[in-house]
Amino acid sequence: MTVVSVLDLLGVAVFAASGALAAVHAKLDVFGVVVLAAVTAIGGGVVRDVLLGITPPTSLRQWEYLVVPAAVALLVFRWHPAVARLRRAVQLADALGLALFVTTGTSVALAAGAPAVTSALVGVITGIGGGVLRDVLLREIPTVLRREVYAVAAALGALVVVLGDRLALPPVPVALAAAALVAVVRVLALWRHWNVPVAR
Amino acid sequence: MTVVSVLDLLGVAVFAASGALAAVHAKLDVFGVVVLAAVTAIGGGVVRDVLLGITPPTSLRQWEYLVVPAAVALLVFRWHPAVARLRRAVQLADALGLALFVTTGTSVALAAGAPAVTSALVGVITGIGGGVLRDVLLREIPTVLRREVYAVAAALGALVVVLGDRLALPPVPVALAAAALVAVVRVLALWRHWNVPVAR
Amino acid sequence: MTVVSVLDLLGVAVFAASGALAAVHAKLDVFGVVVLAAVTAIGGGVVRDVLLGITPPTSLRQWEYLVVPAAVALLVFRWHPAVARLRRAVQLADALGLALFVTTGTSVALAAGAPAVTSALVGVITGIGGGVLRDVLLREIPTVLRREVYAVAAALGALVVVLGDRLALPPVPVALAAAALVAVVRVLALWRHWNVPVAR
Repeated sequence: MTVVSVLDLLGVAVFAASGALAAVHAKLDVFGVVVLAAVTAIGGGVVRDVLLGITPPTSLRQWEYLVVPAAVALLVFRWHPAVARLRRAVQLADALGLALFVTTGTSVALAAGAPAVTSALVGVITGIGGGVLRDVLLREIPTVLRREVYAVAAALGALVVVLGDRLALPPVPVALAAAALVAVVRVLALWRHWNVPVAR
Repeated sequence: MTVVSVLDLLGVAVFAASGALAAVHAKLDVFGVVVLAAVTAIGGGVVRDVLLGITPPTSLRQWEYLVVPAAVALLVFRWHPAVARLRRAVQLADALGLALFVTTGTSVALAAGAPAVTSALVGVITGIGGGVLRDVLLREIPTVLRREVYAVAAALGALVVVLGDRLALPPVPVALAAAALVAVVRVLALWRHWNVPVAR
Repeated sequence: MTVVSVLDLLGVAVFAASGALAAVHAKLDVFGVVVLAAVTAIGGGVVRDVLLGITPPTSLRQWEYLVVPAAVALLVFRWHPAVARLRRAVQLADALGLALFVTTGTSVALAAGAPAVTSALVGVITGIGGGVLRDVLLREIPTVLRREVYAVAAALGALVVVLGDRLALPPVPVALAAAALVAVVRVLALWRHWNVPVAR
């Protein structure tokens, strides 16, 4: 297993948690929680592979990508914290998932031979894809469109990975630095309530 | 025409009916009813083909996949039963469509050389895809997430097809048995109001 | 740059404007406006390329497809007209985007060697795709399903492009005529409040 695939599977786990927590919050039953966790967890990666012409998508070819979200969903369903604390937990899991998927998405695209712009865009789409599906299925305006520094955090991470590739830096530290950057920017934006202008 | 393609077209017809009935219920005009019927009917198959790298998707290459949903939509639009009976009719058409698409989706994936896990997952996605699109476009929480045994019924059917393939059983009876299993489980869940736990 | 790619980029610009205006109307912040403009602008083209097996999609491979929506979104965000006038402006930009994307979508499919039916369908999907994504993300019933002559206008345009190709007519005038037809039918339907039947 490569570093990228370990980070990818970690992203699957935290996005599964974010999907499962959102599903519990929306009072879905145990099956709905598992399905939403799986969609949130593998949605971004499936879209990434379809965009890159990698078919069938990796997430549909390996047991781990099915078992991990299901296990995480059942754990969350059984031991989720009090409902009052759910919103913050969803946000944290979502920030981590975004960070990991932007990084692995960009790396997978570069490895597939895609040019720099394409790779960065595919990375951003991989990062935001699962969360958008989660929010649309629960009939919420996707996080990426709301008053939160979300797409910018994703774009910064993708940029770091692409630059590291251009400068031939060692990929593992670059990937970790990019993921850390996305997560930190995202969490700071949430905690400090960074605001950006709304049209008059 | 193979047995799989006949079952597939039957799935198109009943999912078209389910989409058209839901559209009539949502008071869409005749064009909206046709569009929603078509999206519900061919959505799952298009997603299946994109995931398997079969492009352009089969449903976009054959007249039947366009004419059948349009004809069904017009029939439903003109002669739909009284509104009070619509909900039950949508559920029944949806159960049949799920049954047929899970079966044909899994079979098409196996025929395309996909491994067993992938084929089962693609079958489930083919089965739930059209209904999810229908519900999202009408701004409803998708059936697959609601308190109803939906994803489990689909997974059971996909499992039967994959097992039949592994055991080299004759595909036609296996496909019919799998479809019958999905439909029966689904309809029983609806009629008996089978419930599964919701998180506290 | 071919005529088709110029028309395609023009479609990107007007759909970006439609997405940005809708986002401003929904009170999204500046990042949300840029993201929704980009999704509306390139969504239809990305779906088109995925359906045709053109991966990575053209819109993700060229800077213009990213810079144009972002620039349009910022212009709209800064100088958008008074809110009262927004609805009409969204409709007009949407009609133009539909017209251009149906035409270029059908042409790209024909150029990729797809049969006539497939090309017409891909053209219609390219035309309606971006607007459907815009509406779903903002939790609105998509325009294509509402009481407005939308899918029919798109189908007429796709038909003209396919017929022109069959009759070996010069592609540029045919493309312009098809786009004009879609836009005129669509705008007339809006202005004259053309209605079609709703089921009793």
